Amino acid sequence: MSKGLLIIISGPSGAGKGTVCKGLMSMQLPELEVSVSATTRKPRTGEVEGISYFFKEKEEFEQMISRNEFIEYAQVYDNFYGTPRSHVQEKLNNGKDVILEIDIQGAMQVKKNNPEGVFVFIMPPSFEELKNRITSRGTETQADIIKRLHEAYNEVRLSRNYDYIVVNDDVNLAAEKVKSIITAEKCKLKRFKIDYNSYKEE
Amino acid sequence: MSKGLLIIISGPSGAGKGTVCKGLMSMQLPELEVSVSATTRKPRTGEVEGISYFFKEKEEFEQMISRNEFIEYAQVYDNFYGTPRSHVQEKLNNGKDVILEIDIQGAMQVKKNNPEGVFVFIMPPSFEELKNRITSRGTETQADIIKRLHEAYNEVRLSRNYDYIVVNDDVNLAAEKVKSIITAEKCKLKRFKIDYNSYKEE
Repeated sequence: MSKGLLIIISGPSGAGKGTVCKGLMSMQLPELEVSVSATTRKPRTGEVEGISYFFKEKEEFEQMISRNEFIEYAQVYDNFYGTPRSHVQEKLNNGKDVILEIDIQGAMQVKKNNPEGVFVFIMPPSFEELKNRITSRGTETQADIIKRLHEAYNEVRLSRNYDYIVVNDDVNLAAEKVKSIITAEKCKLKRFKIDYNSYKEE
Repeated sequence: MSKGLLIIISGPSGAGKGTVCKGLMSMQLPELEVSVSATTRKPRTGEVEGISYFFKEKEEFEQMISRNEFIEYAQVYDNFYGTPRSHVQEKLNNGKDVILEIDIQGAMQVKKNNPEGVFVFIMPPSFEELKNRITSRGTETQADIIKRLHEAYNEVRLSRNYDYIVVNDDVNLAAEKVKSIITAEKCKLKRFKIDYNSYKEE
């Protein structure tokens, strides 16, 4: 069985990478699975161990960091979030394609050790639209919004480190494009093992 | 307007590149056009100048060769066939994606001067199937069939010079894959011109 693809879906906050991933997963491609993150934050109502997250105590998480067991991890305020290497490797070895939906800092960590991954940058259609999206959430202060817009501008410039750029002006179209990228990647010469003998004359 | 993609669909005789291209064109992608070849053979009933072929006198064709006006050309028995450079360039400059459906020798000529092209190799699913397809045409002698199978085997080995390999075990699936390759290529970082200023803060 050939190994699956590691697909990194990333982009600035407000670009809509979450909704693009949801759109992609709703297509129910038989070989596509989403990676589950580990976290030290407490489970919320309805969240299921191993599906929503792998819930860890802080000490355990830190031990995993020291054993280099994360493809990428980050601390957000008081909590850790990370992608367990064994979890992803197991899926890939079983021939599954694995989606990592992560922020740009995480993606750059992944790239260091997994250059064979397919790095897709979800691009907001314009700064104006990004502003609308961040503002319309209505959950953030003016200072937060300005800070996030400034971060987003800096992050857009990091798109040059990716393999593909998908402009998210229409979420269904964007999800279709990611699907096409996965299909095309599987046709790439370098991923293709040709058994020339099967074409040999008897 | 950004330039279109040059897509080379090629493969051994019997791999089904013609039917895959027909399947692709039947999807009526708005930006996709097929390149029209020039030839010195006489028009057959129903063939239309500029649609079926550009029909040329032998002398004219040879002058075009000497002026380097073909992306690729070949002599097949007494007739010349070739792809006029100006015809393809005009479409590309108008933002159209252009399909060249050509044999492997032609594709390798194209690659020399157009490395930015997208080179897709249509692979027969197996030698057994290739044999069935070539034999079932019923138009060729036993000696012809053996010759063509031998050629096909050598041609399969040339797939390593292509960007993508599409196994043609199902023509609709194969055409869908080529469509995905075109979509994905348009998302590639290198083909993407980002106007960072449009994301700039006021």
